[in-house]
Amino acid sequence: VLTQVPATALATDLSRPPTTTWTVRAAKEVNYCVRVANNLLAPDDRTLITAGGTGSRDRRRRFLVVDAAVEALYGERLRRYLRRHGAEYEIRVVKADETVKTMETVLGIVAALDDFGIDRRRDPIIAVGGGVVLDIVGLVASLYRRHTPYVRVPTTLIGLVDAGIGVKTGVNHGVHKNRLGTYEAPAETLLDRSFIATLDSRQVSNGLAEILKIGLIKDRRLFELLERHGQQMLDEKLAGRTPNAEAAVREVLSRAVHGMLEELQPNLWEHTLERLVDYGHSFSPTIEMRALPELLHGEAVCVDMALTTVIARRRGQLSVSDRDRVLAVMRRLRLPVLAPVCRVDVLVDALRDTVRHRDGQQRIPLPVGIGGAVFANDITEEELASALEELTELAVAE
Amino acid sequence: VLTQVPATALATDLSRPPTTTWTVRAAKEVNYCVRVANNLLAPDDRTLITAGGTGSRDRRRRFLVVDAAVEALYGERLRRYLRRHGAEYEIRVVKADETVKTMETVLGIVAALDDFGIDRRRDPIIAVGGGVVLDIVGLVASLYRRHTPYVRVPTTLIGLVDAGIGVKTGVNHGVHKNRLGTYEAPAETLLDRSFIATLDSRQVSNGLAEILKIGLIKDRRLFELLERHGQQMLDEKLAGRTPNAEAAVREVLSRAVHGMLEELQPNLWEHTLERLVDYGHSFSPTIEMRALPELLHGEAVCVDMALTTVIARRRGQLSVSDRDRVLAVMRRLRLPVLAPVCRVDVLVDALRDTVRHRDGQQRIPLPVGIGGAVFANDITEEELASALEELTELAVAE
Repeated sequence: VLTQVPATALATDLSRPPTTTWTVRAAKEVNYCVRVANNLLAPDDRTLITAGGTGSRDRRRRFLVVDAAVEALYGERLRRYLRRHGAEYEIRVVKADETVKTMETVLGIVAALDDFGIDRRRDPIIAVGGGVVLDIVGLVASLYRRHTPYVRVPTTLIGLVDAGIGVKTGVNHGVHKNRLGTYEAPAETLLDRSFIATLDSRQVSNGLAEILKIGLIKDRRLFELLERHGQQMLDEKLAGRTPNAEAAVREVLSRAVHGMLEELQPNLWEHTLERLVDYGHSFSPTIEMRALPELLHGEAVCVDMALTTVIARRRGQLSVSDRDRVLAVMRRLRLPVLAPVCRVDVLVDALRDTVRHRDGQQRIPLPVGIGGAVFANDITEEELASALEELTELAVAE
Repeated sequence: VLTQVPATALATDLSRPPTTTWTVRAAKEVNYCVRVANNLLAPDDRTLITAGGTGSRDRRRRFLVVDAAVEALYGERLRRYLRRHGAEYEIRVVKADETVKTMETVLGIVAALDDFGIDRRRDPIIAVGGGVVLDIVGLVASLYRRHTPYVRVPTTLIGLVDAGIGVKTGVNHGVHKNRLGTYEAPAETLLDRSFIATLDSRQVSNGLAEILKIGLIKDRRLFELLERHGQQMLDEKLAGRTPNAEAAVREVLSRAVHGMLEELQPNLWEHTLERLVDYGHSFSPTIEMRALPELLHGEAVCVDMALTTVIARRRGQLSVSDRDRVLAVMRRLRLPVLAPVCRVDVLVDALRDTVRHRDGQQRIPLPVGIGGAVFANDITEEELASALEELTELAVAE
């Protein structure tokens, strides 16, 4: 929901024309809600049908964009749910992968939206899927009639704790990832971990990597929860089969989401390029692209975190035992700490790219102990080579 | 220039997980400058080359998008200017009319921008042209890497006082005008009326219609300036050939821009649907579309204003003599007060469309005297028919 805060006055005064310069000042207030909402498709649950909307019960219209994988597993339940709540609906299924993350897909959804017709002040668009679907639909919503409210329902773990809870939207263009996009807050993001049950376990690990990131840079207790319960969480796909496991899952998700939002909120439009949440995202974009399709996003992030953990240890910011605890947790979450693509020249290329994206400086978050971080701007090629050598030994010794 | 104001705190508290709901609040401050800057292409003027940029003199790169008509008239001077100021530049020429106002054109510009390469923190995109070019480039700038600064240089009178000074961007999609767009403030808008000299006089009248609008609804002195000097302004294409004429042109432009910005600033994202600047824009969208290509935008707006002037008179909000003054000024500015397409059924259709766009209510600004207005929600078909009859008689009697 976007509301407007009172704008400051015009800098000039109408009583004294002719003036020649005007400064227009205003502030757009962004205000959105992220909620844990388990089992959204339960027949009598009203969370999903009321989310982000103001329409009365008798003329509820909902346009949904759903990931093909989600459609196959949950499509029938979703339709039953919508019918039960008396909604007129249209479901647009998108086979979501990076190749369809294009403006063409955006325009296809826009055309379907035009055909269906929604009252953009009352009927939110609902996105159900992983990061790709959420990014595409967010862009549709920000462009359609210059803003249409939308609701995010992430169905992957990485979506639940990372891609789904921010405000970034985007599509790829040419060879460039997310080259075109906007910052557009959803009306609501609904976090339903029951979708995780049908993910394959590598996708669960993929999401756990982003949770681990938050633990490593700012929340030691979150790290310790993963150390103690991470393996079981992965095995049970976050189902929480015992009261203890359930409590741990809840606290892990809550801390991960909270930690992420704490970082995003003061920097929603990324004016600051020193972002703690970029931890694990300095070398990984290049690692991920060069290794495609071998590494998932979270896996590449984990390799980056393993490397920077070693760099931090070599700088004396982390003890040997903490380094080994970190690497042990990564293994327990079945995440890689190294990949064949990691050669020194690739890391140097990655660093150069990152510097270019961060306006000429490295701004690389490096751990200080477990749960703390600083930004480094002085990582050298030699340091990368030594750290890579140490990491290789540790990975082989395993 | 976008800067961020301090965000309010998270509504929840990390010390008490597990929580289940987070509210993210932040405010994006928008702050942009509209400046009168005559003769931007004068060889030694530094306004254009420094606008919106922070690059040092020795690595200035500028990507410009220029209307084909402007390119034909000013392209050589523009290139000379850029070379003189040591800029590396790329000029993308767009034959700007409604048919190329599409996402395809946006993507073509994006590809050219990728090829040229800019530092989006230092090198603004510069748009030079009428409303179509400004709208397209604004959309490019808001999408490219989720925001790239841009500078608007309107070259039409309607651009100078209306399309160029707000924050709306957009392209058409399917049959829908501006179906896809954003609100994205430019870094700066530079108002150079020397471009008006090469417009044909019908295009000057077209812009004067939007100036007249501001006078009618909120600035009686502006109306009176047009009454006294409008015809000469039109004949001289705003060149101000005598000191008196020059003073009048300056005051008219200053008041028009100021009046417009005063209305836009508190409602930059159009949360309020009661907009005084919608005066003349309730019936005109339909009139303009049905009459295409017969009527220019400002001409259709003028027909709408003539009709609503008569409605206001019939409601006793305006005297007969004021009504006649208004119609006389329209004629003096060589603007139509009626068009063959204006039948009662067309006006009824137009009203229905407008009500749909304004969330179920008419919200039609109607003059109260000259320089004042109220919003009407109760205009009937009978009233439209009577007003049209009266306007037809007045137009014939002319």
